Amino acid sequence: MPELRKDVVIGRWVIISTERRKRPVDYSHAVEVKKSNTPCPFCAGQEDKTPPEIIAYRSNGSKPNTPGWWVRVVPNKFPALKIEGELDKRGDGMYDVMNGVGAHEVIIETPDHSKELSDIEDEHVEEVIWAYKDRSLDLRNDERFQYVLIFKNKGKEGGASLEHTHSQLIATPTIPKRVAEEFSGAEEHYKRKERCVFCDIIRQEIKDNVRIICENETMIAIAPFAPRFPFETWILLKEHNSDFASIEKHEITGLAKTLKETLKRMDKVLNNPPYNYILHSSACKAPNMPHYHWHIEIIPRIVNHAGFEWGSGFYINPTPPEEAAKFMREVEI
Amino acid sequence: MPELRKDVVIGRWVIISTERRKRPVDYSHAVEVKKSNTPCPFCAGQEDKTPPEIIAYRSNGSKPNTPGWWVRVVPNKFPALKIEGELDKRGDGMYDVMNGVGAHEVIIETPDHSKELSDIEDEHVEEVIWAYKDRSLDLRNDERFQYVLIFKNKGKEGGASLEHTHSQLIATPTIPKRVAEEFSGAEEHYKRKERCVFCDIIRQEIKDNVRIICENETMIAIAPFAPRFPFETWILLKEHNSDFASIEKHEITGLAKTLKETLKRMDKVLNNPPYNYILHSSACKAPNMPHYHWHIEIIPRIVNHAGFEWGSGFYINPTPPEEAAKFMREVEI
Repeated sequence: MPELRKDVVIGRWVIISTERRKRPVDYSHAVEVKKSNTPCPFCAGQEDKTPPEIIAYRSNGSKPNTPGWWVRVVPNKFPALKIEGELDKRGDGMYDVMNGVGAHEVIIETPDHSKELSDIEDEHVEEVIWAYKDRSLDLRNDERFQYVLIFKNKGKEGGASLEHTHSQLIATPTIPKRVAEEFSGAEEHYKRKERCVFCDIIRQEIKDNVRIICENETMIAIAPFAPRFPFETWILLKEHNSDFASIEKHEITGLAKTLKETLKRMDKVLNNPPYNYILHSSACKAPNMPHYHWHIEIIPRIVNHAGFEWGSGFYINPTPPEEAAKFMREVEI
Repeated sequence: MPELRKDVVIGRWVIISTERRKRPVDYSHAVEVKKSNTPCPFCAGQEDKTPPEIIAYRSNGSKPNTPGWWVRVVPNKFPALKIEGELDKRGDGMYDVMNGVGAHEVIIETPDHSKELSDIEDEHVEEVIWAYKDRSLDLRNDERFQYVLIFKNKGKEGGASLEHTHSQLIATPTIPKRVAEEFSGAEEHYKRKERCVFCDIIRQEIKDNVRIICENETMIAIAPFAPRFPFETWILLKEHNSDFASIEKHEITGLAKTLKETLKRMDKVLNNPPYNYILHSSACKAPNMPHYHWHIEIIPRIVNHAGFEWGSGFYINPTPPEEAAKFMREVEI
């Protein structure tokens, strides 16, 4: 019998499909392997192919926009939103419009074209997370922005246009709808229970102990109870904190370890799938929320959503999260 | 300058991207053409390859589950939800679960494997719409169901597993989240204005006259003001009515004509793209809503959504709807 499971934060229903049950080998997707070794705009030595860098972590004495960096943040050459200008909110008949003002940046995770995020040293992954933190804190100072969304697209099917490993950041002048829904779902739970819903999830998952993928002192990776996607994985800070940008040094160490391990496990179980991950954090103007909890959601892009999902907001997931977590937990890496 | 536009029903923001502006030829996608001529389970003469038919429009004297039909409705062989059983709503720790009870049916639009919905005669398209109506009315009698979602997936990238032209229907035991959002967005508008938001949209679009694709006495096809997808198209009944299943004969004639013409135009402009369409209608238990308005949303699957869209619920659309509508309106068919 298929099971309908409700996401406790957002309230969406997910169909855990038994008739269409799938194991990892049953998913066919593009295997993401590097196609070229020729230098791309994100490679060391190609710094003039991108807009000038915003920040870079680089060796002492090396000059901006030259080699010597290990993590480099640049404006997106084809930004979805533009950094200059005012919002100019206005009406167009019955409709609402504003200028597409915002920031769109690329976090180049390594100068080495051949490496993936899951290949690089733990300490290097930490540096990528420091870049996320630094850029979040900086963009928060811009009065026009309400939210900073950090995400990573891997592979063509994951929406990446360049294969050199990188993350992106978009700062938006409104709170995105999906984020607002999460805030208000979490707030409702808080009003009823006086507890953070994500803290409750962590307690429940540790107690149930069937959907945990890996954990360490600071972080836990789980398959959520009602996942939209097969092998969807959430990484949560064990301690309550709504604001990613306030992450501390020892937590960055824990996050780097967990993120890398989770991606390695996913690559092994699903044979290098395309994926997206998204950092969910609080809003720029009110970073400290008792009811919200920052976390990362990883979604392997191994199924194609169609009319039913687009029309309903229901999701059909052919792999129960308990099975997904077991595969992820038990695979040798 | 990119523009941020707000969908007036759902409240989502869409980025109309100018830096990434695209014309129809700039989209690369799989061209959907029939690959095989061998009989598939949906072909005439293969009726025993599907579960027994629920209804079929067939010539007098022809027997169920034999040739002689022109539109045939069968249960999905691998249903996402199952028709038998009770809901059995229950808790699992802090989480909510129920049995995956529902209907999942396939509407086979023609026995001819070589035809597409946009190829068949207008009168035949009308018969497909009659099947949508008949099944909606019948499933509404089942007390367990709250909503009937009718949709079509075309092409592999559109999520179709069989290439023989067909639509699907899923009846769900809860109101889908996406539908509930549309209802409540429309209700808010109604509370403020005492008018149906979709009726307002139709009036605005006729006045602006820049996003209309085609129209006739009963129906209008438009590119919506804040489309998630390039070349997204909505077909609306000009008269107010929330309940698709109450569609009248002359309206079915108008809808068949508009639907076929819109698909033909889309095929020509975008070179046979994969697509989904979704029929949005009112809920089973309260079909008549003064604030809601049934309509069809057509989404060509020519862009891939990635981390930003999944994380934010914002959409980046590289083709302004005014341009899309112009291409669609002016193409010769």
